[in-house]
Amino acid sequence: MQASSKKITDLFGIEKPIIQAGMIWTSGWRLASAVSNAGGLGMLGSGSMYPHILLEHIQKYKQTSSKPFAVNLPLLYTDIDKHIKTIIDEQVPIVFSSAGNPKTYTSLLKQHGIKVVHVVSSSKFALKAQDAGCDAVVAEGFEAGGHNGREETTTMVLIPAVCEKVSIPVIAAGGIATGRQMLAAMVLGASAVQIGSRFVASPEASSHINFKNAVLDAQEGDTILSLKELTPVRLLKNEFYNKVEAAYAECANKETLASLLGKGRAKLGMFEGNLQDGELEIGQVSSIIHQLKPAKEIVEEIWNEYNTLKNAMV
Amino acid sequence: MQASSKKITDLFGIEKPIIQAGMIWTSGWRLASAVSNAGGLGMLGSGSMYPHILLEHIQKYKQTSSKPFAVNLPLLYTDIDKHIKTIIDEQVPIVFSSAGNPKTYTSLLKQHGIKVVHVVSSSKFALKAQDAGCDAVVAEGFEAGGHNGREETTTMVLIPAVCEKVSIPVIAAGGIATGRQMLAAMVLGASAVQIGSRFVASPEASSHINFKNAVLDAQEGDTILSLKELTPVRLLKNEFYNKVEAAYAECANKETLASLLGKGRAKLGMFEGNLQDGELEIGQVSSIIHQLKPAKEIVEEIWNEYNTLKNAMV
Repeated sequence: MQASSKKITDLFGIEKPIIQAGMIWTSGWRLASAVSNAGGLGMLGSGSMYPHILLEHIQKYKQTSSKPFAVNLPLLYTDIDKHIKTIIDEQVPIVFSSAGNPKTYTSLLKQHGIKVVHVVSSSKFALKAQDAGCDAVVAEGFEAGGHNGREETTTMVLIPAVCEKVSIPVIAAGGIATGRQMLAAMVLGASAVQIGSRFVASPEASSHINFKNAVLDAQEGDTILSLKELTPVRLLKNEFYNKVEAAYAECANKETLASLLGKGRAKLGMFEGNLQDGELEIGQVSSIIHQLKPAKEIVEEIWNEYNTLKNAMV
Repeated sequence: MQASSKKITDLFGIEKPIIQAGMIWTSGWRLASAVSNAGGLGMLGSGSMYPHILLEHIQKYKQTSSKPFAVNLPLLYTDIDKHIKTIIDEQVPIVFSSAGNPKTYTSLLKQHGIKVVHVVSSSKFALKAQDAGCDAVVAEGFEAGGHNGREETTTMVLIPAVCEKVSIPVIAAGGIATGRQMLAAMVLGASAVQIGSRFVASPEASSHINFKNAVLDAQEGDTILSLKELTPVRLLKNEFYNKVEAAYAECANKETLASLLGKGRAKLGMFEGNLQDGELEIGQVSSIIHQLKPAKEIVEEIWNEYNTLKNAMV
C-alpha cells in the first residue's frame, strides 16, 4: 500500500494522496489553493467557467499557492480549444479529463509536459485511457455525485475490477468522505482518493451557502441517479427532481426530459442557491457529512484518521 | 478491528467472520455444511423451500456438520409459521431474517435461545432491528444480488452510516467476493462479511450449472437493479430482462410488470438453468468471479488473502 500510494504522490509532487474533485460551481481557486496548501491536490472545475474565468482562477491560484494543482476538463465543453490553450499557456501541471474520448487531447497535453488523468466508470474505459497515454485514471463509482457511468458499478466492485485490468495508478472516487473510507478505497487497490462532496461542505467552496446547508442536511436515500436517458447524474432530491419523477411516471421521452432540464439549472441550484428549482449534484456520502469545516481541516482530519486506522490494523 | 470481528465469531461460535448468504435455489445443506466445516457460517436459504424441504435440509446439514449454522428466513414467506416451527423444533442456532418487520418474530425466536440477525438496507431499518432485539444486522449495499433496498445506498456509504447509528455488530454484504474486499468492508466498520455471489460459483451450490457458468461469464455492467415498482431485484441481463426493459420503454404499470414476471421465474432460471426466460439473481461482483471452486477453498482463499493484506498494511 505504501508503495502504491507513493506512485501518485510522486507523479503529482504532492504530500498526501488526497485529491479534491474539480466540481462545477464549487471548485474555484480558493478551494483548490486551500487543499493544495494542506498537502493534497487542489483542482479547478473548468466545466462551469468561461475561458476568461478559468484564466482568472488559474492566476489567482498561483498568487495563493506554489504547490501543484490540476484543472478538471470535461472534454465535451463547448469552447474546449480555448480551455486547452489557457491550460498550456499557463503551464497547468495536471489535467483531469472527463466526459469524452481521452484519445483526442492526451498526446497534445503530454507534449507540453502536462500530466493527464482520465475519469472512468468501467475497466473497459480505463483500458482506453491507458492506451491513450494517460498517467492515471480516476475510477468513479455509482455512489459519486454529478455525472456518472451507465453501468452503475459501485466503488467496492469498480476499484478491484479496474486494478485487475490496468497497470497505471488508479484513483478511487465515489462514497469517500472520511479517513476510514479512504483506507477502505486504498485497501481495494487505489493509489489515491478523489473526494468531492466532503469539500462542498467547506467555506472555500464557491457554491452557495444554501446548497452547502442542503448537503449537511442530506439523509440516506436523499440522492438518486437520474436522467439516465440524457447523461446520468446523481441529484439531491428536491422540487425539480419531483418534476422529473412525475415526467417519468408519464413515460416522458428524451426530448421532454431535456426540455424539463433546460439550461443553467445546475448554476441556479448550486451557485445561486435556489434549492427548489435548481439541479443539486451531490454524492450519496453526503448522508454522513454533518459539519462545515475549512478545507485544510478536512484534509488533515481525513489524513489523520486514515493513518491512525492503518496503524491500528495489526 | 480484531475486537470488532471477535464480536461476531463469539456471538455465532465460529472461527472466521465469513458468512455464506442464504440464497434461494442455491443455499442448501451441501453448501452450508461445506462453509461451516471450513470455519465460516453456512446458511440455508429457506425462501425457496417448502416446509418439509427445509426440515430435510436441516437434518442433512446435521448429518454432515456439527458446527453452528443459520437459516435465512424471508418474513414474507407464505407458510412462515411452519418454517418458524421447524426452526424452533430443530433448534436451529441462528436465524437471518429479511424482507419484513423484525418485530414480528424476533422475541419468539430469542425466547427459544436462537440468535437473530436482520438484513437491512439503511440505518433507519438497522435501528428498527436493534429496537426489535436483534443480535446483529446485515447491512446490504446496492451492489448485492437478489432483492435490494429502494434507497440504492452502496456498501461504501452504507456500512459507515449504519455503524454510526447502531451499537449491535454490523455484517457487511454487497460487492464482497475476495479477501481484499472483505478487508475493505471490515475497515469500513463491519464485524463480519456476508458473501453470496462468490459461493454460487462452487460445486456445492444447488443452483444449475448453466447459472453458475453465466455467473463466471458475467462482465461489468451485466447486472442491473430492476423491477423497482414491485420489489427491487438485481438481475443478470438476459432475454427475460430485455422484455422487462421493453415493457419499461412502453411505460408499463405495476400490474403489467407483475404479470410479465409471473411465478416461478427465479426457479426456472437459477435452479432449472433456463438462462433465456429465467430470473437470474446475482451481485455486481460477479464481474470479478472467474473460477468455480469448492466452498472450502473459497473460504480459505478469502481468509488467507484477508489476513495477508491486513498484516502487510503497516
